[in-house]
Amino acid sequence: MVEPPVHLATPYLVVDLDVLERNVTSMAQTAHRRGVSLRPHVKTHKCLEIASRQLAAGAIGITVATVSEAETFVDGGFENIFIAYPLWVDPARGARLRSLSERCSLLIGIDSAESAESLARNGAGSDALGVLIEIDSGYHRTGVAAYGAAELASAALRVGLDVRGVFTFPGHGYGPGQAAAAATDEAQALESATAALRAVGIEPGIVSGGSTPTAALTHHGSATEMRPGSYVFNDAQQLELGSCVPADVALSAWATVVSRAPGQFVLDAGSKVLGADRPAWASGYGRLADYPDARLIALSEHHATVAWPGYIAQPALGTLLRVVPNHVCSAVNLADNLVVMRDGVVVDCWRVAARGANS
Amino acid sequence: MVEPPVHLATPYLVVDLDVLERNVTSMAQTAHRRGVSLRPHVKTHKCLEIASRQLAAGAIGITVATVSEAETFVDGGFENIFIAYPLWVDPARGARLRSLSERCSLLIGIDSAESAESLARNGAGSDALGVLIEIDSGYHRTGVAAYGAAELASAALRVGLDVRGVFTFPGHGYGPGQAAAAATDEAQALESATAALRAVGIEPGIVSGGSTPTAALTHHGSATEMRPGSYVFNDAQQLELGSCVPADVALSAWATVVSRAPGQFVLDAGSKVLGADRPAWASGYGRLADYPDARLIALSEHHATVAWPGYIAQPALGTLLRVVPNHVCSAVNLADNLVVMRDGVVVDCWRVAARGANS
Repeated sequence: MVEPPVHLATPYLVVDLDVLERNVTSMAQTAHRRGVSLRPHVKTHKCLEIASRQLAAGAIGITVATVSEAETFVDGGFENIFIAYPLWVDPARGARLRSLSERCSLLIGIDSAESAESLARNGAGSDALGVLIEIDSGYHRTGVAAYGAAELASAALRVGLDVRGVFTFPGHGYGPGQAAAAATDEAQALESATAALRAVGIEPGIVSGGSTPTAALTHHGSATEMRPGSYVFNDAQQLELGSCVPADVALSAWATVVSRAPGQFVLDAGSKVLGADRPAWASGYGRLADYPDARLIALSEHHATVAWPGYIAQPALGTLLRVVPNHVCSAVNLADNLVVMRDGVVVDCWRVAARGANS
Repeated sequence: MVEPPVHLATPYLVVDLDVLERNVTSMAQTAHRRGVSLRPHVKTHKCLEIASRQLAAGAIGITVATVSEAETFVDGGFENIFIAYPLWVDPARGARLRSLSERCSLLIGIDSAESAESLARNGAGSDALGVLIEIDSGYHRTGVAAYGAAELASAALRVGLDVRGVFTFPGHGYGPGQAAAAATDEAQALESATAALRAVGIEPGIVSGGSTPTAALTHHGSATEMRPGSYVFNDAQQLELGSCVPADVALSAWATVVSRAPGQFVLDAGSKVLGADRPAWASGYGRLADYPDARLIALSEHHATVAWPGYIAQPALGTLLRVVPNHVCSAVNLADNLVVMRDGVVVDCWRVAARGANS
């Protein structure tokens, strides 16, 4: 337990431990029901204490986005890590990867022959290091088309890399009503990529997909594992997408009403606490946990402007309210620690160990 | 000098010291030319080294947004601090304010009789603590209307507070072509508030306004000081608003090309480095410093997707590029330190001392 924020002065982030534990268990059950392994993305929480709970619930390892996140979790004793990112491996980053692969079982994403070469040249050398080919299943951010998986895998094998399988991220499921189609895209892309690899004699041991919105929707295909992240906490995006219900939200920013005007007031949690993420389809810059009809209509660094429904009396100045961030991964990455409560009582304080670990 | 980021692995934030120093000097000259004092907002940079340069250039003190920012800068030896925020002062926050006011000359914003009472009850008690009445000059976030300044000032005096003047933030100047009108609103609001206070026998010693977009536009009115923040670095917002030119941008995120596709590529600086701020009028999620026709069309936590102009060859994987964040205050608050360069050589590394100081 680290020291809680000074006097719990607002704004600060609070984890509801009962809800968190329920979310961790529930996703482990979903994976079990689907017959796939769970390798949760820890970029969401960046906390050793939460990753430990995920492993205890049955996760086979963890997913991270950066080398420095991997370093933080290896330092914390984690032994099975997938860096789900198409790293460009210069000599310095290669040295860090070699050091990591001596301390854990390490998987790295690749999405080009050149990045495979950069990894082979500078970072490979340990039997503990494997690669997964990134497939673009429709999000069009990174990854190769499914039909290109064999060519890239063959190139990776030629430079001496240990190709263990394929992965994708169906990020285009993050839109109202889009999760089911994205889950289908994901399953088809993984199926096609698997077939493409088998056609050239490569058996993909790992076929990895998944995101929180699509996690429970994919019931077919060749996937062997999934990598959801946000489900541990959920957030206003997941709420508005219908990926969770209000009772599943495990993290909120506690904030104080500091200023009032007719029909609206200002809370002291702004973009430096909640993050400025706002998809075009979102109702605002977050939600009030206890007032579903309130809207966060404007956000500056230390101000959230709340439009208040006329049928409820406005809260007085000094009132404490709970704000659910739009994107919990961004909010957590702004905080040095998380206040942990059970039944309304502070029971712990967790350090956001990999906060700011972007490199 | 703190230790630079590990091997300078991308992504990291770089300050161009020549440009920074020029910006600091130039704003000091603008204030001098206007005949007003400069009390820069240090929420932008949160660095003791930059605030020191601002004082050396003639600033009379600094502005902060939170009590913990004030604590960081008092610990760093700063003696004249304005918390430009309508604090709600519970007993714990009040104790911190009393402690601060024993160590520095402290000004605090108020925008309601209730917050004035909370301050008088819990935080006042030192002659070094004064208050400024916040005026809404058209941004409609916090503050009272100019005609309400006298009533609030009188209420503050009645509970024993030392009313030193008024302040406003013309945040509605943050829109294309809106700065001049916002500067006029600001000047008129401060003029009206000053007149309102004088009508009840209160002489406002401090009449404080200003923002980076309006700083050079206000040539009249009763203002005695201004509080711009972003000008030390500037950012893509200021560029697109026309508040600065490319040569005035002193901070960029250095990032690596990690993935390519026809017409676009991905950089390893995402919202956890740049911040997710994107006003509706912005061209994208930031700008490439050296390629004005490129557009940052999508941003996720560790990916910036760049749409690349057809007339230039796409940069190779592994290429280092400089990204100018949309909102530099958000980007800096995500970093633990800033790499400082002069003429392309690393000359220092500054700690973002007040990073995350939100309470």
